[in-house]
Amino acid sequence: MPRVFSGIQPTGDPHIGNYFGAMKNYVRLGEEYGKNSIYCVVDLHAPTNPGAYDPARLAARTFEMALANMAVGLDPQKVIFFAQSHVPEHTELAWLFTVITPVGELERMTQYKDKAGQLESVPAGLLMYPVLQAADILLYKADTVPVGEDQVQHIELTREIARKFNHAFGETFPEPRAVLAKDALRIPGVDGQGKMSKSKGNTLGILEGFDSIWQKLRVAPTDPARVRRTDPGDPDKCLIGDYHKLFSDLPTIETVYVGCRTAGIGCVDCKKMLMEGIRRELTPVQERAAELQADPDRVRDALATGAREAREIAVPVMEEARERVGFLKL
Amino acid sequence: MPRVFSGIQPTGDPHIGNYFGAMKNYVRLGEEYGKNSIYCVVDLHAPTNPGAYDPARLAARTFEMALANMAVGLDPQKVIFFAQSHVPEHTELAWLFTVITPVGELERMTQYKDKAGQLESVPAGLLMYPVLQAADILLYKADTVPVGEDQVQHIELTREIARKFNHAFGETFPEPRAVLAKDALRIPGVDGQGKMSKSKGNTLGILEGFDSIWQKLRVAPTDPARVRRTDPGDPDKCLIGDYHKLFSDLPTIETVYVGCRTAGIGCVDCKKMLMEGIRRELTPVQERAAELQADPDRVRDALATGAREAREIAVPVMEEARERVGFLKL
Repeated sequence: MPRVFSGIQPTGDPHIGNYFGAMKNYVRLGEEYGKNSIYCVVDLHAPTNPGAYDPARLAARTFEMALANMAVGLDPQKVIFFAQSHVPEHTELAWLFTVITPVGELERMTQYKDKAGQLESVPAGLLMYPVLQAADILLYKADTVPVGEDQVQHIELTREIARKFNHAFGETFPEPRAVLAKDALRIPGVDGQGKMSKSKGNTLGILEGFDSIWQKLRVAPTDPARVRRTDPGDPDKCLIGDYHKLFSDLPTIETVYVGCRTAGIGCVDCKKMLMEGIRRELTPVQERAAELQADPDRVRDALATGAREAREIAVPVMEEARERVGFLKL
Repeated sequence: MPRVFSGIQPTGDPHIGNYFGAMKNYVRLGEEYGKNSIYCVVDLHAPTNPGAYDPARLAARTFEMALANMAVGLDPQKVIFFAQSHVPEHTELAWLFTVITPVGELERMTQYKDKAGQLESVPAGLLMYPVLQAADILLYKADTVPVGEDQVQHIELTREIARKFNHAFGETFPEPRAVLAKDALRIPGVDGQGKMSKSKGNTLGILEGFDSIWQKLRVAPTDPARVRRTDPGDPDKCLIGDYHKLFSDLPTIETVYVGCRTAGIGCVDCKKMLMEGIRRELTPVQERAAELQADPDRVRDALATGAREAREIAVPVMEEARERVGFLKL
């Protein structure tokens, strides 16, 4: 059976981009692969991002992302679900990988170049990010890594690190493959200005109050060609049309698409129908989130159990890696 | 009371350069500072040196260096003595330090430039070496680091990492100072071609058989100006003269210095007198080494106990660092 690993950024406040792009996919993979699906809130990576990281908020954001994933339906009893900083073998294996990873390869990573280019002083953690990421995956001998397109190059490097390690020290690690999640759409931001992302402030949060979501939708841009109520519109050029495809059932989608093209319904009505779909989709998530917020120990206990389960796999793999590299065993 | 940390490279086969430059000093500091002197065989660093590292030999070399230090007189019951790879907190703290260490600083390290310049492909471990070294020291909140001159720049970086961490996350680490060991002479190699070093093959091993040592001394160059037995020599321009200062008592040193300058003794006699000093100094070391080789569990048990003692300090410091950086505590 394949073993799936995925890292979850502890950004806090997950939005519908995270939800459709990753979180629902985790639940689905979890149903399929059970304890062979490993989900890790990658809090050790967070401080390498000087822009987004705040030491005073990291713990809360880690907790929130864990809670949100459980609210979406990730079942810690079915999968392995934990926070990276609770499994020290991640950094230990990363160190061993620095030995076989050329500096030049790391400097060529597109994400590194993009982020480093914006910084006056580049922290070494940013350069080493993909080495820790390789350790995250290979520590569990995972072979399947659902990722967004921006991570494909890092998974390619992970494969190369596995190959180099196996070549230098003997067959130890599989070469994992990146799987672009089926649902990993580029969800547009509610401002209509490109991809939804926290840094752009154009998100709809999955745990956001419905009033707040409605206030954002109400003023969201629609097809700019539809100036008057009586002008026909093109729902394929409208982010509300895009959102309907995520939240609405087929009859509703048909109604609003035809209504928009024929000027049969106005944009406000269309947005109200979308809002119904959003409520239907997110109400159970928000109810579960409220339950977990009222009982935070359920989240903490889940992460503690998850870390123990993760270490049941990680400790022997680390032991094997340590022996391969030749350290003295007492 | 100051806390001393020193890393011991697992090179195997320690020579009299290591012995006078570091090992005897460890024993002396150990007598003075007891459990506040922490000695670590830095095996995690070894694989970053592609030239000298051999996975099939690393464990044996780690063991040999531990044994040799115990044979010289380092008492694991008095000090804390362990191997780095047995304390996972070293790599964990190193990861946190990557976040505050600029890539540019690491690229400017002289040792990195020297070593990287000789390599076709530079492993990331070579670049990260001083970050792990900083973690080695600060994990124990050590403030005093006896080192050779070539490590002074790395200790300066360690101070900077401590400062940056304290600044970013609150006062946590002391700024350790490098102490150039009083005895850290540049011991000349037995070929008279500069510093004694394993890579040059010009060493006298402290556990080397006396016959073998004598064969090397017998052909060792002396003052080149002393061509004939009847020519007077200059013991200050002779490596045998240098060695006498390490191994011989004052009357012997006086005898050979005067004898050389007056052509009163020949070089072979002078070397024989040196050999007596070497025997006197190294016989007890070699006897203790033989005892330990006959009972290797004494070395292994010492390292296991040392790792436990080291972790008694390291685990709470790591816990503190982890909280400072903001990781979720369960």
